[in-house]
Amino acid sequence: MPELYFEDFTIGRVFETEPWPLSQDAIIAYARRYDPQPYHIDPAAAERTRFGGLIASGFHSVAIASGQFVRSGILAAAGMGGPGMDDIRWLAPVRPGDVLRTTVTVRSARVSQSKPDRGVVTFALETASDAGTVLTLTVAVIIGLRPAG
Amino acid sequence: MPELYFEDFTIGRVFETEPWPLSQDAIIAYARRYDPQPYHIDPAAAERTRFGGLIASGFHSVAIASGQFVRSGILAAAGMGGPGMDDIRWLAPVRPGDVLRTTVTVRSARVSQSKPDRGVVTFALETASDAGTVLTLTVAVIIGLRPAG
Repeated sequence: MPELYFEDFTIGRVFETEPWPLSQDAIIAYARRYDPQPYHIDPAAAERTRFGGLIASGFHSVAIASGQFVRSGILAAAGMGGPGMDDIRWLAPVRPGDVLRTTVTVRSARVSQSKPDRGVVTFALETASDAGTVLTLTVAVIIGLRPAG
Repeated sequence: MPELYFEDFTIGRVFETEPWPLSQDAIIAYARRYDPQPYHIDPAAAERTRFGGLIASGFHSVAIASGQFVRSGILAAAGMGGPGMDDIRWLAPVRPGDVLRTTVTVRSARVSQSKPDRGVVTFALETASDAGTVLTLTVAVIIGLRPAG
């Protein structure tokens, strides 16, 4: 990934990220700490729920999508953290053995009025397994403009 | 926590959750996997950023808030997963040694038209450290009505 600055995030530009395989152990390990509901941590109990088996925590799929986004290197040169995230939608269950693929699309970009050396870029993330889209969200990131010279 | 069903989630009802102390090791461990940016994983590099030191990934603070929400037991009797999360705002940095406290408030509740044995309840989560509010978000959860009899 080349060094990317605010000017590089043109509306509609698309970035692919690396696939993320998800094991049953990883689903359970995440959920034991952050979302210990039976259908995320107990395969036998999960069989008896409306999900018909173990599914990943929705917060886990958000964490994975963020991991793919950050590891892509998109933010490595000029990312400065972000104000927030919106419109998280869990569209389908994520199950053990799924391989998650996340696409990142630039939705909007505006230069800061108070600090003209940076801007806010909003990215739409769409995460899919082989069964189709499982998660969509938008996340806003503060990104530096290209340094002069 | 008593068994709670849809009818118990009256608008404005507030639930407290257990405090969650956050160590530097936990911040780094989370971020190495899901948000490996220098100011989340490298204390020395973090000193040279605008944050002036290591801060937790915003995705980590969302994970912790969800952990406090689920561990409170609010959803234990009748929670069935959720359609999504909105309006995540990272309001202040979270640093090693912070103890996070999350308050959960019922924002809205409506019975499903297609499946009248359940409804969607929207909760507002507000997470604070000693320095003030660090995170706010809303999350929608499908919750079963109290069984007849």
